[in-house]
Amino acid sequence: MKGRVYLVGAGPGDPELLTLKAARLLAQADIVLHDSLVSREVLARISAGAEVIDVGKRCRRKLLTQEEINTLLSGYAASHEIVVRLKGGDPSMFGRAGEELQALREANVDFEIVPGVTSGLAGAAAAGISLTDRRVASQVLFSTFSRTPDANAMDWGCLTPATTLVLYMPGPDYLEVSRRLAAAGLPPDLPCVIVSGASGAEQQVCWTSVEALSFEQKLPAPALMIVGRIAAKQIQKIGDAFLRGRSTALPAQRVSIS
Amino acid sequence: MKGRVYLVGAGPGDPELLTLKAARLLAQADIVLHDSLVSREVLARISAGAEVIDVGKRCRRKLLTQEEINTLLSGYAASHEIVVRLKGGDPSMFGRAGEELQALREANVDFEIVPGVTSGLAGAAAAGISLTDRRVASQVLFSTFSRTPDANAMDWGCLTPATTLVLYMPGPDYLEVSRRLAAAGLPPDLPCVIVSGASGAEQQVCWTSVEALSFEQKLPAPALMIVGRIAAKQIQKIGDAFLRGRSTALPAQRVSIS
Repeated sequence: MKGRVYLVGAGPGDPELLTLKAARLLAQADIVLHDSLVSREVLARISAGAEVIDVGKRCRRKLLTQEEINTLLSGYAASHEIVVRLKGGDPSMFGRAGEELQALREANVDFEIVPGVTSGLAGAAAAGISLTDRRVASQVLFSTFSRTPDANAMDWGCLTPATTLVLYMPGPDYLEVSRRLAAAGLPPDLPCVIVSGASGAEQQVCWTSVEALSFEQKLPAPALMIVGRIAAKQIQKIGDAFLRGRSTALPAQRVSIS
Repeated sequence: MKGRVYLVGAGPGDPELLTLKAARLLAQADIVLHDSLVSREVLARISAGAEVIDVGKRCRRKLLTQEEINTLLSGYAASHEIVVRLKGGDPSMFGRAGEELQALREANVDFEIVPGVTSGLAGAAAAGISLTDRRVASQVLFSTFSRTPDANAMDWGCLTPATTLVLYMPGPDYLEVSRRLAAAGLPPDLPCVIVSGASGAEQQVCWTSVEALSFEQKLPAPALMIVGRIAAKQIQKIGDAFLRGRSTALPAQRVSIS
């Protein structure tokens, strides 16, 4: 084996949120295999001499299967020195890196993961909030929204008042998301902020709540939702009464969110 | 107000894991207020002309109170153009940015959050694992370990077999961590990987389990633990029997928070 495969996080979209290491590897790469979600501005940083392959999905049509991508990675590592597998956000978060890593291990290919800025953190930055404001939150759950009835991917019934939920890929059906959040026991007034295109030129931020979410205008993908007491514009307005009210049965308590 | 305060993520330690934006701001800064956890190599990237202030804790002795830091930030923004508040990892994760943001808002100071690579993601990269390998995990809980009897910071009783737990700052008492994880209902053989100094020159990775953790040699701080089925060296060895065994044993119990 000649080369090394770098699983590189491309960050949330803004090319300035690439790490120095990611930028260096893109400039040095012999070949880059990227997801479709990676922004045009980031792709512009790839060495002019590198071969560039879009392996992602486009319009819900898979360009390549995961198996095909795995095979390509091992194959290219045999003939190229620097093979970059470029993934939106961070490679370890919701990106199917697991299967690629296993395939590389089994093929005895040298690899390295280069972490990146995951979009949830860019979303929090866009909204100007701390995900773990110690006055109201102590932990953060990063999850996805799936439409399958299998609730495995969305076990939110366990969220505590001190948990912030960051929901990747909520999709366009906000009514359904709102219902599922309510079904998980979250109070209607619990703040929620929707961030679309975090860090990019088209970034949009919408301040809402679990209940009001149903009526919000749909924001373009990629989008994410940050749900929890820290997602209030003014955390200090979420008083102790709210906390007390949630301590037992999670009643729908009126709180002022502005 | 003249200047802007940038809350900048310094990343996990490796200066190459700074974002391009963070590196640019450090090179342009008039003044930098940083935590003690920020690595020497990162600090070396600060403009030679900038004033540099360590506002962090050292040997458990606070150099400045949070209130004092808040006051400093607003004050410096009145007299400096580019004020950088440099925080280890990402500013929105476990860094008290919440209080600083509120103080800046109240003082009507212009600010911006520059997200960074949080150490949990660097830990996953160091271990070569995906936190959300879709075959065994669907969500990630980022939490801290606190020694206080108040369970607020550690509501892990709700972890599902498909949840990965990333535990920041577990401290040196692995026996206590192991006991608390077991008390939360996690099975003794659930894989756990300890990463010390993620991405730095002294990085160490230790593969263990919830039970065996008690007997591991203590790794130097800063360290974190990644607990869950994805933390097995060979995910395929974690069979369905494991999942079945956990399906009923997990009480979806809410911890009362007051």
